Amino acid sequence: MAVTITAFEHSPDRGRGLARDMRVRWALEEVGQPYDVRLLSFGAMKEPAHRKLHPFGQIPTYEDGDLVLFESGAIVFHVAEHHAGLLPSAAHARARAIAWMFAALNTVEPPIVDRASAILMERDKVWHGERLPILDDRVRNRLRELSSRLGEADWLDGAFSAGDLLMVTVLRRLIGSGILEEYPNLSAYVGRGESRPAYKRAFAAQLAVFAGTPQSG
Amino acid sequence: MAVTITAFEHSPDRGRGLARDMRVRWALEEVGQPYDVRLLSFGAMKEPAHRKLHPFGQIPTYEDGDLVLFESGAIVFHVAEHHAGLLPSAAHARARAIAWMFAALNTVEPPIVDRASAILMERDKVWHGERLPILDDRVRNRLRELSSRLGEADWLDGAFSAGDLLMVTVLRRLIGSGILEEYPNLSAYVGRGESRPAYKRAFAAQLAVFAGTPQSG
Repeated sequence: MAVTITAFEHSPDRGRGLARDMRVRWALEEVGQPYDVRLLSFGAMKEPAHRKLHPFGQIPTYEDGDLVLFESGAIVFHVAEHHAGLLPSAAHARARAIAWMFAALNTVEPPIVDRASAILMERDKVWHGERLPILDDRVRNRLRELSSRLGEADWLDGAFSAGDLLMVTVLRRLIGSGILEEYPNLSAYVGRGESRPAYKRAFAAQLAVFAGTPQSG
Repeated sequence: MAVTITAFEHSPDRGRGLARDMRVRWALEEVGQPYDVRLLSFGAMKEPAHRKLHPFGQIPTYEDGDLVLFESGAIVFHVAEHHAGLLPSAAHARARAIAWMFAALNTVEPPIVDRASAILMERDKVWHGERLPILDDRVRNRLRELSSRLGEADWLDGAFSAGDLLMVTVLRRLIGSGILEEYPNLSAYVGRGESRPAYKRAFAAQLAVFAGTPQSG
């Protein structure tokens, strides 16, 4: 069955895999679900045709026959629920993996996005120099807690899950900040995610859009 | 079966129901699941005993026998998955309701929390007066899109769901800002949520903690 997702026509991160379609590509690769990609300009994302699919005019979306979904977390969850490989089958472990999905998106990602937004949108403001260290420390608070929980484990709760998939993509948004490297076990955790074959296929597919080479779905 | 959640011993919002235990209480009331509440001081939340349950040292948590969960979104989802009443049974409608859960927490809540954090933590900064209107406008951008999607409907996608439950609690964090009132259909939407009997029972229960009156679980 044909699955179609949407992604940026012009990658704002120059192909570093930080856009939210990366999460969905990775999940689809983990479960072996082929997919097509429809690329959108920034203008097209805000047009009524796309807003019918995504009320907030963003990417990614997910279309599978009559089903249209938005929100990367929800799409990853949908993929995980309908294929083996991203959620444990045992009920309690499954619920805990889902908790990590929400933790990645609702507890760890917000301070990381805040920091990135400030750098993008407030760097010309007089307060930027004083405010950025505050934002850095908010990120560090979360990372310290996450690092402490992860400890020496490979993944957050037993086997690799959709919770790890989302957490790794969230932590990757810190690339270039130097902050992730302050927590060696988190750095290694991200590295483990990036070394998964499914991750590599997804990364290559999103990079191909930026590089302008033909994409294999 | 005994379900236990955690909540603040001293309500930082003076019982207005803005703490994240409100979401869980409301979900449990919607499905008719009795629950006990263990109240925590701010100090106890950061102690190792609680961090075993919640790696980020926050409330709420959820305990049901051997199962321990954290993250309000994950707990609401767990309750919704194991009881009737918060997620549609039709597969596509269910997936869309879950998309709204993630949208509430990952797309709509972050700018609202940002704004609240700035008021709480940066009001003594010289930049606060210039920065607050920027934050207000980020909130308005999301609300305009949400308002446009909701239109004249009662709920975001068909019947009331866990997606509406989370979205209403997220929008309620704007109480007192005057911003929600700029979008009459969103204001009415929040009002519909607040008028549900389950909401009222949950609200009274969290208010009882603040008021110091005995709590019925």
